[in-house]
Amino acid sequence: MCGSCADHHARPRRPRRRPPAGPARQAAVRWLPIRATPQELRGDERLRPRGWLRHYGGLLSGDAAAGMGVAFERDGARRARQVAAVALDRARQRATNTRPRMRALQAAPGGRLRWQEVPTPPPPGPDGAVVRPLASATCDLDCAIALGASQFPLPLHLGHECVAEVLAVGERVSSVASGDRVVVPFQINCGRCPACLAGRTGNCTGVPPVSMYGMGLVGGLWGGAFAEQLAVPYADAMLVALPDGVDPVLAASVADNICDAYRHVAPHVPRLLSENPDGAVLILAATRRRFFFSPSLPLYTGLIARAYGAHDVHVADARPGVREHAGRLGLDALHPRELRKLDRAPLVIDVSGGDLHLALARTAPDGVCTSSGSLHRSARIPALRMYGRNVTLHFGRTHARALIPAVLELLAAGRLDPRPVITNVAPLEDAPRALGEHFRGGGVKTVLTAP
Amino acid sequence: MCGSCADHHARPRRPRRRPPAGPARQAAVRWLPIRATPQELRGDERLRPRGWLRHYGGLLSGDAAAGMGVAFERDGARRARQVAAVALDRARQRATNTRPRMRALQAAPGGRLRWQEVPTPPPPGPDGAVVRPLASATCDLDCAIALGASQFPLPLHLGHECVAEVLAVGERVSSVASGDRVVVPFQINCGRCPACLAGRTGNCTGVPPVSMYGMGLVGGLWGGAFAEQLAVPYADAMLVALPDGVDPVLAASVADNICDAYRHVAPHVPRLLSENPDGAVLILAATRRRFFFSPSLPLYTGLIARAYGAHDVHVADARPGVREHAGRLGLDALHPRELRKLDRAPLVIDVSGGDLHLALARTAPDGVCTSSGSLHRSARIPALRMYGRNVTLHFGRTHARALIPAVLELLAAGRLDPRPVITNVAPLEDAPRALGEHFRGGGVKTVLTAP
Repeated sequence: MCGSCADHHARPRRPRRRPPAGPARQAAVRWLPIRATPQELRGDERLRPRGWLRHYGGLLSGDAAAGMGVAFERDGARRARQVAAVALDRARQRATNTRPRMRALQAAPGGRLRWQEVPTPPPPGPDGAVVRPLASATCDLDCAIALGASQFPLPLHLGHECVAEVLAVGERVSSVASGDRVVVPFQINCGRCPACLAGRTGNCTGVPPVSMYGMGLVGGLWGGAFAEQLAVPYADAMLVALPDGVDPVLAASVADNICDAYRHVAPHVPRLLSENPDGAVLILAATRRRFFFSPSLPLYTGLIARAYGAHDVHVADARPGVREHAGRLGLDALHPRELRKLDRAPLVIDVSGGDLHLALARTAPDGVCTSSGSLHRSARIPALRMYGRNVTLHFGRTHARALIPAVLELLAAGRLDPRPVITNVAPLEDAPRALGEHFRGGGVKTVLTAP
Repeated sequence: MCGSCADHHARPRRPRRRPPAGPARQAAVRWLPIRATPQELRGDERLRPRGWLRHYGGLLSGDAAAGMGVAFERDGARRARQVAAVALDRARQRATNTRPRMRALQAAPGGRLRWQEVPTPPPPGPDGAVVRPLASATCDLDCAIALGASQFPLPLHLGHECVAEVLAVGERVSSVASGDRVVVPFQINCGRCPACLAGRTGNCTGVPPVSMYGMGLVGGLWGGAFAEQLAVPYADAMLVALPDGVDPVLAASVADNICDAYRHVAPHVPRLLSENPDGAVLILAATRRRFFFSPSLPLYTGLIARAYGAHDVHVADARPGVREHAGRLGLDALHPRELRKLDRAPLVIDVSGGDLHLALARTAPDGVCTSSGSLHRSARIPALRMYGRNVTLHFGRTHARALIPAVLELLAAGRLDPRPVITNVAPLEDAPRALGEHFRGGGVKTVLTAP
């Protein structure tokens, strides 16, 4: 069965226990399998979704255990309570059905995407809000998650980048009101703990570690942004008003990927250029054609580096389509095997998802390598070369909430135009099909819009 | 044969081709074997010097090849010319004997130390100087080098930390004059290249990479500080006047180890304490009892951290003697296996020489791990945990010359007293015996003084 006619062969609808009570009660529940097609990607770039067996087998790996270790490293009991509360709420709602239902996009093993009908979030707590995503974007990681190629256990509700409209706020919320348009950071943060106060919002100690939307159990079951509604537990701390004149479609990815790109550039490029105005920036992305992460992050990073004045920006990616795309954005694109032709760079941005060794080997003496990290339990680094050269490595996640205002300023001032990175805009209604095409067609960034 | 009576069994003197012409012509050439003795160290801490076979076998390892790769990474031809020029000069001097001779301490495989008679340095070039070491200290690395347990090929002239008296300067030298007392940084730097001008003197591009005293071929054959004279190629760039009232014995290690400790503390502790006045500093040293690096660096680091206001400073070392020593300095000492009892630290200083994985695993979210590096080709890091926590790793060498003035200020102001770290002070004349005891007796810091 090819991908283009997958919908004709969709699984029969599962019988629902009771009819949905919300506005989406008529929506069909359909499974759309994801298949890379030879028409769209070369044979050696085709991504095969992992089936139930391989996905759940992968969850027994050391990498997956390490991932769970990270999620439960602190406040394990609290996370367990949160997960139990969500499960209990769903069970109760199935029994009592007191809240309207809504649709949330669910990814399941085998690369299957479907609308699932779930209860709408409860009315917000005193510090919370309920929002309605207006523009939800794919994160680069979503491809790996949806295809079952990561240690995020499926099924889960997908999506963690959105601009949304506030529907309701709790009584203590003062910074946003119903009807406001806001960027919803992908990480949950309380705004009151020492980490939040220091701007390290991704390591908020008011919530369990790596609390995020759209990551299922590992993220803490906070829901996904490819949905009709989303609960925000700390509205004042998390939500950032969208500046007038900024298109929600362009700003959707500010919630994660654009902030991630920004933190690789803004703290480093000005210092680099002050020492050497011709200082090179190397962005290392996929080192093999078949790669489970979408390529928006290297492209955003290149654009922001240019916006910060770097004019020697190289994007190394093994995927020909990504190199073409980078070339269209005015970036120097090359295959990672051509890196030896370049001098080592004083700033290397590693978004390769696991080829840290190469990124560090290409870092110049006294250079900085800043990495978006990897999902592998451990990594090998070229210690002696780093010792000889002196290298600084930043390895981790972005503190999205703390950076969103600065990134929105870049957009509002016209210094960054994310438009040419987006490869598809589709109605949220059409999410299973549009996301299926995104994942199987090597999409860079798909944005789903609600009316 | 035990170490204490080694001199009675010294090898017969080798016949010299011609009598030395310098002031040291009467000095005996004696081999002093190094043997750890049960009286001084426990059986499982005893360090066995590596013989010729094991040492040269080790030089065929991947680690050694990587070390040579670092040394020849840039300006390989220049380094080869420098090495050839030194060899040619020695050969010429053996034939013509136009310069006086002096003694330089040579370490050879089998843990053997001897005075070697070599020509004194030639008169300084226009930018150079010739100095006479007044107080030369052991570096922590010297133990591994002298015992043949590193990839620095033996034999070599040992020593790279000293305070010296200037004997002669070139015509362009303006900052020091004959008779001045100066700290001689262990790294060679030109003072004019972009790296030097940016304060990154350890990565000077005016000389081949990792150009250092006392490291033999890998360092570039610049001579050793356990000698009667030493040539300084760039006197204005390198030499720093010793402040009045600072004892050369205490300042000898400023040339390397104390600067190395300082760079782990000064850029990080003030920021750490501004965020949390009770922020902990963890210094990770030896993770096993039998360890080839002397322990002065963790102790200096602890003292400097205290001088900077940190009062929660932990030194983890598997050697009971080092823990006792750290305790006497007022530091909290513990065995590395007890680290789980401590919270993860926001600043981890890795001087373990190879246990980077443990150091990174003990680094708190958004923490910094600053490492003195390792001599292993590669190292494994806990990638997923670092990704979950966000960790910054500084991995490399100190830029000694750039830091020496600040460190001397600490000493002159009495904020740092390195005295309690020094375990032995002996006359330079007695170097083979004193250093033999230092290496076989688990010495922390031995300083050799010239009259």
